[in-house]
Amino acid sequence: MGVFNMFETEENNIEEKKEKETSQKNDVNDVLKVSSKSDPNSVAGAIAGTIREHGEAELQAVGAGAVNQVVKAIAISRGYVAPSGLDLICVPGFKDIEINGEKRTAIKFVVEEK
Amino acid sequence: MGVFNMFETEENNIEEKKEKETSQKNDVNDVLKVSSKSDPNSVAGAIAGTIREHGEAELQAVGAGAVNQVVKAIAISRGYVAPSGLDLICVPGFKDIEINGEKRTAIKFVVEEK
Repeated sequence: MGVFNMFETEENNIEEKKEKETSQKNDVNDVLKVSSKSDPNSVAGAIAGTIREHGEAELQAVGAGAVNQVVKAIAISRGYVAPSGLDLICVPGFKDIEINGEKRTAIKFVVEEK
Repeated sequence: MGVFNMFETEENNIEEKKEKETSQKNDVNDVLKVSSKSDPNSVAGAIAGTIREHGEAELQAVGAGAVNQVVKAIAISRGYVAPSGLDLICVPGFKDIEINGEKRTAIKFVVEEK
């Protein structure tokens, strides 16, 4: 049954869909913030949409669980856009952010066409 | 003090160094297997060495903690090779593997020059 078994799709992941719609409406600088509870398939859809519209997507994750979801989402999104001839790659980096007044180090991912 | 504070370097991470030496001796198909306990700086050194020798590196991680260490290592390794004019990117994917007779899904990362 392949690897996609891992991700049981929730048909109505409303929060993710909202995020996707928002990111598609706004400009390229919008960051997709991913949590450990984000559904990788929904995030992958958001990445594919953002790439198609803006040519690149930026994601941000804090913590190992969130980083893991981002990586899975990028892998899945590669399959979403590959039939259109797009070969996605990602560039990870660190980003100092503040959450509730606390300094944290987020991982930032830029996803773009090869 | 910046993001690198997160990773307190162990000067003598012997296991990682052995892995690095082995990977540099063998051909490009050798996979750097990363665990949640791997030191991102050591893994970054292994990536940089493999890239310099073979032009690309492949890493494998099972579980969120291990995936997180790989991503941090790739971000750090970008800084290691950037002064030589190399701009590293990564391509994540899934890989079905078997650990102690149990089927697991690993995340595979191919790191290469842009």
